[in-house]
Amino acid sequence: MPHRKSPPQIITLLSDFGLRDSFVAEMKGRLLSLCPDAVLVDISHEIEPGDIAAGAFVLGHAYRAFPPGTIHVAVVDPGVGGKRKPLILSAQRHYFIGPDNGLFTQPASGGPSYRAFEILPCGQSPAPTFHGRDLFAPAAAALACGRAPSRLGRRLEKIKLLEHWRPVPLARDRGWQGRIVVCDRFGNLLTNLPGNLLAAMSKPVLRVGRCVIGRWVRTYCEAAPGHLCALVNSQGLIEIFLREDSARNKTRWPKDTTVELLPTFHK
Amino acid sequence: MPHRKSPPQIITLLSDFGLRDSFVAEMKGRLLSLCPDAVLVDISHEIEPGDIAAGAFVLGHAYRAFPPGTIHVAVVDPGVGGKRKPLILSAQRHYFIGPDNGLFTQPASGGPSYRAFEILPCGQSPAPTFHGRDLFAPAAAALACGRAPSRLGRRLEKIKLLEHWRPVPLARDRGWQGRIVVCDRFGNLLTNLPGNLLAAMSKPVLRVGRCVIGRWVRTYCEAAPGHLCALVNSQGLIEIFLREDSARNKTRWPKDTTVELLPTFHK
Amino acid sequence: MPHRKSPPQIITLLSDFGLRDSFVAEMKGRLLSLCPDAVLVDISHEIEPGDIAAGAFVLGHAYRAFPPGTIHVAVVDPGVGGKRKPLILSAQRHYFIGPDNGLFTQPASGGPSYRAFEILPCGQSPAPTFHGRDLFAPAAAALACGRAPSRLGRRLEKIKLLEHWRPVPLARDRGWQGRIVVCDRFGNLLTNLPGNLLAAMSKPVLRVGRCVIGRWVRTYCEAAPGHLCALVNSQGLIEIFLREDSARNKTRWPKDTTVELLPTFHK
Repeated sequence: MPHRKSPPQIITLLSDFGLRDSFVAEMKGRLLSLCPDAVLVDISHEIEPGDIAAGAFVLGHAYRAFPPGTIHVAVVDPGVGGKRKPLILSAQRHYFIGPDNGLFTQPASGGPSYRAFEILPCGQSPAPTFHGRDLFAPAAAALACGRAPSRLGRRLEKIKLLEHWRPVPLARDRGWQGRIVVCDRFGNLLTNLPGNLLAAMSKPVLRVGRCVIGRWVRTYCEAAPGHLCALVNSQGLIEIFLREDSARNKTRWPKDTTVELLPTFHK
Repeated sequence: MPHRKSPPQIITLLSDFGLRDSFVAEMKGRLLSLCPDAVLVDISHEIEPGDIAAGAFVLGHAYRAFPPGTIHVAVVDPGVGGKRKPLILSAQRHYFIGPDNGLFTQPASGGPSYRAFEILPCGQSPAPTFHGRDLFAPAAAALACGRAPSRLGRRLEKIKLLEHWRPVPLARDRGWQGRIVVCDRFGNLLTNLPGNLLAAMSKPVLRVGRCVIGRWVRTYCEAAPGHLCALVNSQGLIEIFLREDSARNKTRWPKDTTVELLPTFHK
Repeated sequence: MPHRKSPPQIITLLSDFGLRDSFVAEMKGRLLSLCPDAVLVDISHEIEPGDIAAGAFVLGHAYRAFPPGTIHVAVVDPGVGGKRKPLILSAQRHYFIGPDNGLFTQPASGGPSYRAFEILPCGQSPAPTFHGRDLFAPAAAALACGRAPSRLGRRLEKIKLLEHWRPVPLARDRGWQGRIVVCDRFGNLLTNLPGNLLAAMSKPVLRVGRCVIGRWVRTYCEAAPGHLCALVNSQGLIEIFLREDSARNKTRWPKDTTVELLPTFHK
């Protein structure tokens, strides 16, 4: 009788640990000790220390590329050892494991609903400063080996969600107020404004302070060098860029700068 | 009857995406969704943004260490979404997938010949700004699952090759003109001058501007500290270095600086 | 009769090669060419060039998280091609492969005893500047495929150990003298003082120059912002930190700064 091999269980890792110290390797060693056949994939370990919003953004986009059933361990955890709860979240047909501090806002907000569990430690007590290795990795390995989330912790009704991560409508249907959420490696400025807002607007512009950006293109190489342009990026978000240059260095707009999406201004 | 397991299919990745954003993880998620048993290996994601020549250099040396049949996905692609063609290249018994912009100059130039195909998208149309995830990763996964390159695109007679990546002979057999192509992490200055040029020369020296380097050693620790020395490195290329120090910081010679390999100058 | 699949052989990699050049990928290609089923895990490639003590520290903590039988290839090797010996070490139920320059001080010092072998090259002679690819990777692959260390080299009675990596007792039972061995990504200052020294002391303090630190906590978020505090970290070592800030930037204490662990000073 043919034996259908099931695909290997993928566990992704995201953290603010960087790649110089031993933290990430300690988590991977623990995972592979407990679940030798897991396939480990790094999402990013270069999240700025303690920047939960940036971690939530990167994870919120990366997880969608993975197959359903993937386990995502995310550790941006300035409150480790404190009152924030250790979490298993089942949402969007993926699993998420990490601190309950807003890191999982995107999958938890995507509807229709999620199921969450507070991880209860079993076995030896975890080091109070490294739940990634001693609490989250063992929970991920247990899930990967087929254990049900409900057997690893106790049901939580609600988890913490980040505020203000979605754009808000401006008064009198005059557009939307968003902000710059991430500057990527190329110096492109990513906003939290979804590209599908454009469909309902004629001749939309972006306003950042006194600067108005009205050149929309499909792809970077359609833009004229030296002029700020906008496009809808591969994640479906509106992005401000400078062709073959860094929009960030040119504008110096920091993260969280307000960006308004407006219909063309008529005097 | 014994069942001989075939070795897992290796897919390598090289890009200028860095490791902070979600780009690399999105490619890996797509690859593992389509080909769960592939073994993914990073070559480098720290190529300077848009530096095709640096990407070609790193890939051109790294691929040779992998077994024949390996699939190499390389994305340094400032022209993404523009006129440059998406490419599958079969050369040197390896596969290469990425933009047709010169990235694959080394394997394509290594003879005897290559076969190239322009990837034709199938299924949903790719995001115009992220062919790595939406075009190259699916093509690599299809190859890894056993599909023939000819079924993924249409034959191309020629691909784009970088110019000037090989040294040129100087007049009257007086030596060779090359250049510094890469500065590595240790501050060593790698030239494009192959070490086998030395065999035909007696007492060769390197000239960079007014500086003449005539100390040749076999290995770094044979050099005297504080003096620029040269050796043939592990890739078979002539390299200028400073023992336990950075030749780059000391000389400030930028990439593309001309380096001449000359027989010893006689007055 | 059921066939119990043995777990895949893990090979970890640590180096000072960085992730921009092709060095790490060349090692991985060689490993997978020779041992296609090995599972490769990076510990760190961001060790400062030539910093053997830092490599030894990171490796010494990371390896313990992996299962017994794991093969650890570590290459921080300023003396490559020189007199230092290429090494296979069997210690603590793990294997270690790399240069005999002190990198393996921690597992070799952990008792009860180790077995060491000098690797003898077989096949084509290795590039004198890249033993990682041409000597250590093939040895690791051979081990991973089941070859005994004694068949890969000749027995060594002693290996090189780093000096001064353990704290020393102060005169008249007045405490211990250690030092700052690593500054991690968060700016925390890790000492080589084991936390279990605290058990025998009443009201211990840390003295660094004129600064005395007497606030001990269990976890980072118990500390008051703005004040240097100490805790026993997840590796069991005493660590000086500043809550949600960088102790390194505030104090400017460099690596190797002396840290004394003292009973509270009585006038």
